[in-house]
Amino acid sequence: MREDGLRELLAAVAEGELSLDAACERLRELPYADLGSAKLDLHRELRSGAPEAIFARGKSDRDLAAIVARMIDDAGRVLVTRVTPEQATLLSARHQGADYDDVARVWSVGRFDAGDWCLGLLSAGTADLPVAEEAAVCGAWLGAKVDRHYDVGIAGVHRLLDRLAEIRRASVLIVAAGMDGALPTLVAGLVAAPVIAVPTSVGYGASFDGLAALLTMLNACSPGVAVVNIDNGYGAASLAHRIQGC
Amino acid sequence: MREDGLRELLAAVAEGELSLDAACERLRELPYADLGSAKLDLHRELRSGAPEAIFARGKSDRDLAAIVARMIDDAGRVLVTRVTPEQATLLSARHQGADYDDVARVWSVGRFDAGDWCLGLLSAGTADLPVAEEAAVCGAWLGAKVDRHYDVGIAGVHRLLDRLAEIRRASVLIVAAGMDGALPTLVAGLVAAPVIAVPTSVGYGASFDGLAALLTMLNACSPGVAVVNIDNGYGAASLAHRIQGC
Amino acid sequence: MREDGLRELLAAVAEGELSLDAACERLRELPYADLGSAKLDLHRELRSGAPEAIFARGKSDRDLAAIVARMIDDAGRVLVTRVTPEQATLLSARHQGADYDDVARVWSVGRFDAGDWCLGLLSAGTADLPVAEEAAVCGAWLGAKVDRHYDVGIAGVHRLLDRLAEIRRASVLIVAAGMDGALPTLVAGLVAAPVIAVPTSVGYGASFDGLAALLTMLNACSPGVAVVNIDNGYGAASLAHRIQGC
Amino acid sequence: MREDGLRELLAAVAEGELSLDAACERLRELPYADLGSAKLDLHRELRSGAPEAIFARGKSDRDLAAIVARMIDDAGRVLVTRVTPEQATLLSARHQGADYDDVARVWSVGRFDAGDWCLGLLSAGTADLPVAEEAAVCGAWLGAKVDRHYDVGIAGVHRLLDRLAEIRRASVLIVAAGMDGALPTLVAGLVAAPVIAVPTSVGYGASFDGLAALLTMLNACSPGVAVVNIDNGYGAASLAHRIQGC
Amino acid sequence: MREDGLRELLAAVAEGELSLDAACERLRELPYADLGSAKLDLHRELRSGAPEAIFARGKSDRDLAAIVARMIDDAGRVLVTRVTPEQATLLSARHQGADYDDVARVWSVGRFDAGDWCLGLLSAGTADLPVAEEAAVCGAWLGAKVDRHYDVGIAGVHRLLDRLAEIRRASVLIVAAGMDGALPTLVAGLVAAPVIAVPTSVGYGASFDGLAALLTMLNACSPGVAVVNIDNGYGAASLAHRIQGC
Amino acid sequence: MREDGLRELLAAVAEGELSLDAACERLRELPYADLGSAKLDLHRELRSGAPEAIFARGKSDRDLAAIVARMIDDAGRVLVTRVTPEQATLLSARHQGADYDDVARVWSVGRFDAGDWCLGLLSAGTADLPVAEEAAVCGAWLGAKVDRHYDVGIAGVHRLLDRLAEIRRASVLIVAAGMDGALPTLVAGLVAAPVIAVPTSVGYGASFDGLAALLTMLNACSPGVAVVNIDNGYGAASLAHRIQGC
Amino acid sequence: MREDGLRELLAAVAEGELSLDAACERLRELPYADLGSAKLDLHRELRSGAPEAIFARGKSDRDLAAIVARMIDDAGRVLVTRVTPEQATLLSARHQGADYDDVARVWSVGRFDAGDWCLGLLSAGTADLPVAEEAAVCGAWLGAKVDRHYDVGIAGVHRLLDRLAEIRRASVLIVAAGMDGALPTLVAGLVAAPVIAVPTSVGYGASFDGLAALLTMLNACSPGVAVVNIDNGYGAASLAHRIQGC
Amino acid sequence: MREDGLRELLAAVAEGELSLDAACERLRELPYADLGSAKLDLHRELRSGAPEAIFARGKSDRDLAAIVARMIDDAGRVLVTRVTPEQATLLSARHQGADYDDVARVWSVGRFDAGDWCLGLLSAGTADLPVAEEAAVCGAWLGAKVDRHYDVGIAGVHRLLDRLAEIRRASVLIVAAGMDGALPTLVAGLVAAPVIAVPTSVGYGASFDGLAALLTMLNACSPGVAVVNIDNGYGAASLAHRIQGC
Repeated sequence: MREDGLRELLAAVAEGELSLDAACERLRELPYADLGSAKLDLHRELRSGAPEAIFARGKSDRDLAAIVARMIDDAGRVLVTRVTPEQATLLSARHQGADYDDVARVWSVGRFDAGDWCLGLLSAGTADLPVAEEAAVCGAWLGAKVDRHYDVGIAGVHRLLDRLAEIRRASVLIVAAGMDGALPTLVAGLVAAPVIAVPTSVGYGASFDGLAALLTMLNACSPGVAVVNIDNGYGAASLAHRIQGC
Repeated sequence: MREDGLRELLAAVAEGELSLDAACERLRELPYADLGSAKLDLHRELRSGAPEAIFARGKSDRDLAAIVARMIDDAGRVLVTRVTPEQATLLSARHQGADYDDVARVWSVGRFDAGDWCLGLLSAGTADLPVAEEAAVCGAWLGAKVDRHYDVGIAGVHRLLDRLAEIRRASVLIVAAGMDGALPTLVAGLVAAPVIAVPTSVGYGASFDGLAALLTMLNACSPGVAVVNIDNGYGAASLAHRIQGC
Repeated sequence: MREDGLRELLAAVAEGELSLDAACERLRELPYADLGSAKLDLHRELRSGAPEAIFARGKSDRDLAAIVARMIDDAGRVLVTRVTPEQATLLSARHQGADYDDVARVWSVGRFDAGDWCLGLLSAGTADLPVAEEAAVCGAWLGAKVDRHYDVGIAGVHRLLDRLAEIRRASVLIVAAGMDGALPTLVAGLVAAPVIAVPTSVGYGASFDGLAALLTMLNACSPGVAVVNIDNGYGAASLAHRIQGC
Repeated sequence: MREDGLRELLAAVAEGELSLDAACERLRELPYADLGSAKLDLHRELRSGAPEAIFARGKSDRDLAAIVARMIDDAGRVLVTRVTPEQATLLSARHQGADYDDVARVWSVGRFDAGDWCLGLLSAGTADLPVAEEAAVCGAWLGAKVDRHYDVGIAGVHRLLDRLAEIRRASVLIVAAGMDGALPTLVAGLVAAPVIAVPTSVGYGASFDGLAALLTMLNACSPGVAVVNIDNGYGAASLAHRIQGC
Repeated sequence: MREDGLRELLAAVAEGELSLDAACERLRELPYADLGSAKLDLHRELRSGAPEAIFARGKSDRDLAAIVARMIDDAGRVLVTRVTPEQATLLSARHQGADYDDVARVWSVGRFDAGDWCLGLLSAGTADLPVAEEAAVCGAWLGAKVDRHYDVGIAGVHRLLDRLAEIRRASVLIVAAGMDGALPTLVAGLVAAPVIAVPTSVGYGASFDGLAALLTMLNACSPGVAVVNIDNGYGAASLAHRIQGC
Repeated sequence: MREDGLRELLAAVAEGELSLDAACERLRELPYADLGSAKLDLHRELRSGAPEAIFARGKSDRDLAAIVARMIDDAGRVLVTRVTPEQATLLSARHQGADYDDVARVWSVGRFDAGDWCLGLLSAGTADLPVAEEAAVCGAWLGAKVDRHYDVGIAGVHRLLDRLAEIRRASVLIVAAGMDGALPTLVAGLVAAPVIAVPTSVGYGASFDGLAALLTMLNACSPGVAVVNIDNGYGAASLAHRIQGC
Repeated sequence: MREDGLRELLAAVAEGELSLDAACERLRELPYADLGSAKLDLHRELRSGAPEAIFARGKSDRDLAAIVARMIDDAGRVLVTRVTPEQATLLSARHQGADYDDVARVWSVGRFDAGDWCLGLLSAGTADLPVAEEAAVCGAWLGAKVDRHYDVGIAGVHRLLDRLAEIRRASVLIVAAGMDGALPTLVAGLVAAPVIAVPTSVGYGASFDGLAALLTMLNACSPGVAVVNIDNGYGAASLAHRIQGC
Repeated sequence: MREDGLRELLAAVAEGELSLDAACERLRELPYADLGSAKLDLHRELRSGAPEAIFARGKSDRDLAAIVARMIDDAGRVLVTRVTPEQATLLSARHQGADYDDVARVWSVGRFDAGDWCLGLLSAGTADLPVAEEAAVCGAWLGAKVDRHYDVGIAGVHRLLDRLAEIRRASVLIVAAGMDGALPTLVAGLVAAPVIAVPTSVGYGASFDGLAALLTMLNACSPGVAVVNIDNGYGAASLAHRIQGC
């Protein structure tokens, strides 16, 4: 709102439709709700196309509950990530119609209207599932039709090649991989859609908690690979949502 | 071609329209041209929407000339990155209608038809220009209308805010930044378009040749930021091209 | 005392006011109290403007109690950081008028006289609170009037801009941020006061326990940013105290 | 200007003293000068107390000359860092009354009025001189009286102790050290002034171009140490200037 | 199967022996079994000489049981690594003739026929045993006769020299070492067989969880050293199996 | 010789066939030639199957010439790696029948008898050629028939798949790859032969001079991948030679 | 024994005093006791001046008990490090006259005769005590008279200077320090004795578990500093023992 | 002088033998010579047993000449390291009886009287020579008899074992090694003398300029290994000198 509305705001002030104090107040009050230690960015949806998601880890029960309630009041929907089963139980007791996925660790109320875009989700191994599912569930909440293709890593490349036609139907692809993190390069060489690579902290020894996969993806030989943070399934889904909307 | 055409190829063989030897030969011969030490991926455009770009650094004059000639023969256009002025002179002597940009270090013949998409290019400082211009020139070659907003880093945030309305007109944004690499986070919080963050190796001391900026971007607090490799302007443009086409 | 008093000490010896043995003894005895495994630096306040704070983590109950008691005996006040609730209970049972803040994890008796300086505390997110509060509570103990502005990270830059006038009232600013650590750069570009940046270990994946934020802050594009160790709220407050006193 | 003047600007618009277009224009035009690839932040001095310094490395002669000329036109003074002798010759030919220090690699025209503050400059070894001198020359330009104490590293601690009384006269201290980077800890334990630690890339082997010294300083056992980037003498001086002004 | 059989498949289609749909189906169906979140690579043995091993860590009981059962159904044997005692009890209750080694943490049913090759297993210390035993047990399952020589690190080089004649009898050697990781270099200088070096995460301080040993091995002064991932005993055995079969 | 011959040596001493002094002398003199600063390991071939290769980089002309001459005198053949054209000219002037390959940077006299083993050499890109050719030329010198398959990286996976039948003919494979280093994983999933992965320092930005490729290879999802040091083509060939001989 | 006794062994064989088989057997049997998974290096004391110490961490109760018993049988004394209280209770129940120090985590039986050397132990803070005490207790076991000077870090340098005369009495110094690790540099500049620096994993944030202190010590500006591994108190004592004996 | 002489100085003042001003002056003037940017630590020899060595790299000709002249004036001897041939020519023209070693890059005048200690110098390869020779030449200057054993790395362990008797004659050993850095561990397991390990930056790829060797040495399985900085031959010699004197 801030910039786009500035001229209008000035115009309203110039024409006397808005008092000086009201204008200042509006500039201050509108964009967020101040809950003390948190300032909810209620207008993020207007600015950047998707509302602020809530990251549950490390939040006290009281703070979490207050934030979630305020978001639902304001927008009628909310997406919360990294939610423990205990946190989910607490929240579900207070809000009707909530969904909780314990693999993806995502709790939500409401969702975006289903769009006409298809989000393809690939994982290299079965151990990448929690991250891939976080991306899948968040993507679905943001309106995507989600196609899953799991355990198609390049150690057995035929598993991927056999599904290529289906994979090519997606308008955006999210590829989660740990260990050597090589799957996104291969995929990006076979499809025309943008590929969002999510390194996972899966592996042991010199995988260094996802660093090896992260470096692999940044150095992908195929152009057209977008990299997000290690284990950041939500970030990948959010990027996919931006991409389909552009 | 490989997967999509497999059924058709099989059908042609089954119907006797294609001999067995011819089918095997076609599977082998079609997708690339074998120049000895290089195998040009001529069908990458069919598979992934953009032709293979040539990375000039470290290639001998003879190899570079041969590869470029073959690409032009095959596709009528070619994009070559990291081209020294000497290499550019060599290539331009052999091909008519070539373009060379010595800031972006990009040499090209032909280009994609202009599309109806706008690529916004932002840089945090003036030292990020070579990387930003590589992205800009490659983006233009791939059909984008390119809007440049340089030297709008967050140390003087008003320079960015004043241009926000223009920046919001772009369908995809590429943001190049070195040193603290903080600009993409700020931009992604203000616009709805996908933001492609390119860390640059600009800075000194603990910037560690772009590592600091890279980590900043991967940890961007705003969702919707796609990260590519350090100084990889071409990769950013290529990703933007995929995104607008999805 | 060591250097400043040397001439006076020598003078006293020369004039026979102080015996040789007494002089040597005084040189040895004065500056600290030897508790066996700990040597309390009682004169640090004289030398460096603030008394030695006690870092409670890893200390045995007996050692901690002895050190705290000795400091209170000597100076009438003490500041203890990283105090668990159990340690706090133990200490509070032995000393009257103690304060304990379980978010900041700070226990104290007494404090500095309130000064006429204002310490501004900013945090990028709510997860940075424990570190920010450690800085805030220590700053208040050192005599500052503390203004808090939490959850004003650059992903929603309007939350910061709306509070800019208040923020500018502080004579020193402490900015705690994890993840991309970009907030101090932005703040330092908007205010004239010195900005003390505290990276926090908040984040996941490639934040590497605060390393990403640390590097961002060291590479801040705005000059005038002072960086302290990861999660070191006390160090930031102590630096702020020095700065206001210079 | 942005925030502080917003209410005044709005008031002027409300009272009809300023047209809507003029207001928008002023918001856009005032704070910087657009030189194409560079946007000079002319109002940084108003916002943050010191004008934008120019970093000469990597700039073309033409760009550098244009930026310097514009800064002098606007403010009557300019500070340029990391200037090669060739660049200095070029600039000095165009501007009268310029100063160039080839150890500090700093070129300047004009300067701040001399203040009443004393900046103490310490270096651990003689090899740290270029960094220490960059800090010293920039500090003097910003109005400080500069006291130098070089080659006082802790391998021969008496060299430092003998100068302690003088060192204590400074209101702010900048301590440059490479190799083990231990000097700032020692100094901060002996003085009450804030200590700005500048790691230098001096050393060999496991000094890793200043990383070892940087880590030492971040982990300084004495509180009250502010760390800036490796070799960043200008940043240290700029921070010192902010500190004395707070 | 994919490539080798392609010509035969095409031939069968051309001669009408295989319908088009059947050919496509066979291409899709043959190589793996789709268990939902896992796609078992049943033909890996045909392609790469050894069946896919199952990595138990992080798998749910249900998924693990299903995968193991499917592998036994298909191949009559299975090798599972990183199996906890609880997982082993669960699996052994469902399958007869199972073996479980709680040092190696390996569970298996069936095994390869004993070959005529000898695998020499060396460890530098006793703490490397779990990794060395994982390699030994997996090697035995793959048909090797295994000779163990443990605790023969170079701090007491006579322990190794005294056993040299026996060590030389092995056709392939696996050498597990943590801390300084120097044993493989020494061994490779004394024998003609290929040496597979496995860094272990044994050590403390600057061993950095095996990184020091890994770097030592990669820099081995003796040529002929093959390095695998930290603690990856199974990978070493699998590589040994490939080597003896070539 | 040391260990194997010990019993024989002792027997000869016991039977009076060898004097005590002669025995001691023989133990000292046999295994190497002492050239002052170098001690040529003349018996390495007996112990480990291949003679010591000479690493030319950093050696003075005089030392290099002396070492090469001594090796040729002793064994009739020598392999020298990382040889500059100048060094090659110097050496070739002194020895007849020498070979020099300026891409591989390998100089040699004589060679092993051709064996009946086939070494497959793959590279991901054309920039990996110098490393791949070092491996190829050294492999040929050690008796291998060498098959080259260059520029078959996974960004265009059909280039690899089309050559799979030929690739499978090799008894050992060396795969050189920089950037994302993903090719060895893919290859190891498709063939039964051991795969020696050589990371190359090809790439830019976050490839960190081959570190990214190295980590990828260590974390290869396909078992049976042996990793050697970055750019170490000779080491890979030497390992291949050991493997085929086991 | 190996090398020194070789000539004597050969002589005994030559003179018929020792049979061939007996000689071979002796070469094999003497230097260590084979307990299955462990090979005790019983002659290390002859070779390197001190017996092998036992590292208890990660050893099973059964293995630990067997190793300790064998060492006591053979040498009449043993030193065991990193011993938990549970392990200590177990061992003390089996052996009379045992000592256990629960701060140093060292268990021992017997000890070296008291030598005439003095080992000075310094620690920077109280949190370094466990490491410093491991060094102190091991040093005492190896015959040293131990002088302790704890909590003398450079943040309060007078604590060190006041004790300098005593510190100079030691023939070898061990200095344990975490955080900035600067104490050894200072000490080495003030004394003539060799200084063994032990980085400790004490600190938080950017101390990176002792890495910062390790780098500081390796880069010590004072020559004459010997560095050992992080937290390796035993290694420091063992090095001190070697030094005093040379 | 500082501490030891304090009592005497005080006594002299107390007895009126020394005026107050003279005492202060003496405290300030004695220990070093102030040459402007350098403060020569002339009394280091009294404090720490060896005079300050001069590190020539990066010093201007004028500064270097002044420092060297002052040291010779004061002590009659000087040791200068990392001296280029040009610097050596310059210095030798001004001082008689100078020595310069162009492999060790050491220039000196005078030296310590020959002591009765033997310094053993080992290197793993010929490429480690410059570092080993710096240690050897500095050791000889400090009075040692130096025994050299070069190119005795563990890839051909018999080269070391054959020289063991000689190596054991040294009272202190310096072992220089790059690449895998494994030699010091092996040596420390075979001798009783203290072993000073110097990692060298020799190697390529994952040796990371000596980091791999450094980590190996810090993790040496044999106790009694002292580690110094990468390539720091002078530091090793200086430590050896301290050790023999203790």
